[in-house]
Amino acid sequence: MVAAHYEKMLLEKSVIRQLSEFATARGKEIGYENVFDYSLGNPSVPVPEAVTETMIRLLRERDPMELHGYSPSLGIPAVREAVASSLRRRFGVPYKTEDIFMTAGAAGAIAHAVRAVTVPGDEVIAFAPCFSEYFPYVNGTGAVLRLIPADTEHFQIAFEAFEKGLSPRTAAVLINTPNNPSGTVYSAETIRTLARILDRKSREYGHEIYLISDEPYREIVFGGVEAPFVAAGYANTLTCYSFSKSLSLPGERIGYVAVNPACKDAAKIVQMCAQISRETGHNCPASLIQLAVAEHLEETADLRVYETNKEILYRELLDLGFSCVEPGGTFYLFPRALEEDATRFCEKGRKYDLILVPGDGFGCPGFFRMAYCIDTEKVKRSLVALRRFVKTEYPSAGRVSQK
Amino acid sequence: MVAAHYEKMLLEKSVIRQLSEFATARGKEIGYENVFDYSLGNPSVPVPEAVTETMIRLLRERDPMELHGYSPSLGIPAVREAVASSLRRRFGVPYKTEDIFMTAGAAGAIAHAVRAVTVPGDEVIAFAPCFSEYFPYVNGTGAVLRLIPADTEHFQIAFEAFEKGLSPRTAAVLINTPNNPSGTVYSAETIRTLARILDRKSREYGHEIYLISDEPYREIVFGGVEAPFVAAGYANTLTCYSFSKSLSLPGERIGYVAVNPACKDAAKIVQMCAQISRETGHNCPASLIQLAVAEHLEETADLRVYETNKEILYRELLDLGFSCVEPGGTFYLFPRALEEDATRFCEKGRKYDLILVPGDGFGCPGFFRMAYCIDTEKVKRSLVALRRFVKTEYPSAGRVSQK
Repeated sequence: MVAAHYEKMLLEKSVIRQLSEFATARGKEIGYENVFDYSLGNPSVPVPEAVTETMIRLLRERDPMELHGYSPSLGIPAVREAVASSLRRRFGVPYKTEDIFMTAGAAGAIAHAVRAVTVPGDEVIAFAPCFSEYFPYVNGTGAVLRLIPADTEHFQIAFEAFEKGLSPRTAAVLINTPNNPSGTVYSAETIRTLARILDRKSREYGHEIYLISDEPYREIVFGGVEAPFVAAGYANTLTCYSFSKSLSLPGERIGYVAVNPACKDAAKIVQMCAQISRETGHNCPASLIQLAVAEHLEETADLRVYETNKEILYRELLDLGFSCVEPGGTFYLFPRALEEDATRFCEKGRKYDLILVPGDGFGCPGFFRMAYCIDTEKVKRSLVALRRFVKTEYPSAGRVSQK
Repeated sequence: MVAAHYEKMLLEKSVIRQLSEFATARGKEIGYENVFDYSLGNPSVPVPEAVTETMIRLLRERDPMELHGYSPSLGIPAVREAVASSLRRRFGVPYKTEDIFMTAGAAGAIAHAVRAVTVPGDEVIAFAPCFSEYFPYVNGTGAVLRLIPADTEHFQIAFEAFEKGLSPRTAAVLINTPNNPSGTVYSAETIRTLARILDRKSREYGHEIYLISDEPYREIVFGGVEAPFVAAGYANTLTCYSFSKSLSLPGERIGYVAVNPACKDAAKIVQMCAQISRETGHNCPASLIQLAVAEHLEETADLRVYETNKEILYRELLDLGFSCVEPGGTFYLFPRALEEDATRFCEKGRKYDLILVPGDGFGCPGFFRMAYCIDTEKVKRSLVALRRFVKTEYPSAGRVSQK
């Protein structure tokens, strides 16, 4: 008999996947360039050419036995050292090689971090809105994800609700800044308050509450926005990073867990990650990709398009009467839908070839997500559809412009 | 608090790792070329140049957005189709694209296969001697690995002990042919008998017993040896493959699960694998590597050195009075130690700079493993040390030659 648990997961159809299937089918009818697909968080800019050249050089020049040989389960030592050194220099936290564990992207990082600091039955707190995959990442370990309702005014943290949600069973808190889906960046004040509460509650409960900070959008922060480095504000932090967005390499599955050296049991936690891999069959990211990113840790793809797109869309949304917190980074916008049922709102949008994702799956009903990692030219063309959608379906919405 | 379960695993020091550390330390004293390190199963021949050229071509010519973009969680469709088509052609089993799940090596494959067909508390049977990592792969899912004692005469399957070990809680049987550590290849007769028993017991218990066949050494089979394709002999087979050995790419973490289309719930099992990934954070092997191996599915690195090494060592071992089943493939030999305690035997070997692995960790005390994936020149030089070791420590052993 097959495992009923995973069989059941098959029945829970992914909303985003359904939307994506709709977009593909519609694209076949009218041409994909005419479908305004805001559903997928897939980077829309290429990897830097320098990274491609590094991969080619490694393939041409390195001894293939060394290049493609087994990497140690914690990651290639020189790569771990390069990551530690870059983090030290950029953020002033004294990471050492032994604080870094290389992973297959942020998914691998979070799955390891949660397993390292929880036991089955423990609670992990996350804040709405959040990436829907946090549920399987956490619940698959035997721990339980507890979602704190959103601060819908600013998409920072609803601290009152958070304090009520904490309990002696809270082993970890999982945050994501810059945030998918809201696009907001947690302020220095948010991080300070969060750290104060975690310190106080750790003392009260007599055990550490670890902070797992998911940061794949760290490098996508817009002009004038300050993005504090979370681990600098709280000792017991496990930072989960991915190069998927910064270097536009999502398919190559490369990231890391960086355990703050001030974290209790830091070195042990990293070592434990390699034991966790033995059970999940993770066994390191690809060696060629590890070696390649290690040479480009402080570079990024040309990420400016995301801010350009944000500007265009954000202004238009306000103009059309939407209420929306201005994103400080990422490539997401998360406006309030123009009717209470965001799923219905998004369904109506499809009539105008606008593919929008309802906020329900992110734990935040009544809102919708736009992933604007698409060509600016297409963003501009989508404005006509957006305007037509709103004026036709919600004629009394806000102060609709008469352009 | 960190997870006690993984903390405890840290204390169970890996014998192979300790040996490898000894070899490195000793290498610093006398030069690594003088340490006869038979401890690690790391391929000793390079990846075929054609594979390197394919990677470079993909990097130069493919649209980077497509090349490095997210791959679907089951693997890149064209890659899955290429694998299915190659297996169809080579082994006559009618695999389709939807029967293939791409994984990060055999570790990822086995971890997914076991999770797909067991629930916590189920038993998975394996046969000694076996790869020690089967324990975390299986026990990490919540199922329990039950090891059947070895058929030490032929290193096929001890069927009488197997039948006694089966119970209604047996959900799956995990085999490995060609076998690490024994080097033997399961015969057609062994597969037939195994399939007959599994069919009979499945009917008796009223549920399928799945066969998980771990085949990373499939292409390393020596002249005159027939290696039957396991899935062709039993419908409910999940084949776990890795390109680590065939293409000498262990660090790139690439393999697959192929579910026999005749297997009960075949398509569902493959789909479930993608759900399992969501919990373990596996999320596909690297896209560049997937695309590269898909063009070289029926090629291998130059594997002839392994048979050459086997010939030299096997003859010498017999000559020195060892009892040893002749390997039919892989790059392992698994002779009986010259004293009952194989750990003590291997410790004594270290005095002669011979790094041998006791069979205890493979569930087969009294034997030792030699991984002869090293240069033939070094194998030849090691014979002097081997002879000195045996003649000094075990002067009455067998018919020691006087060369």
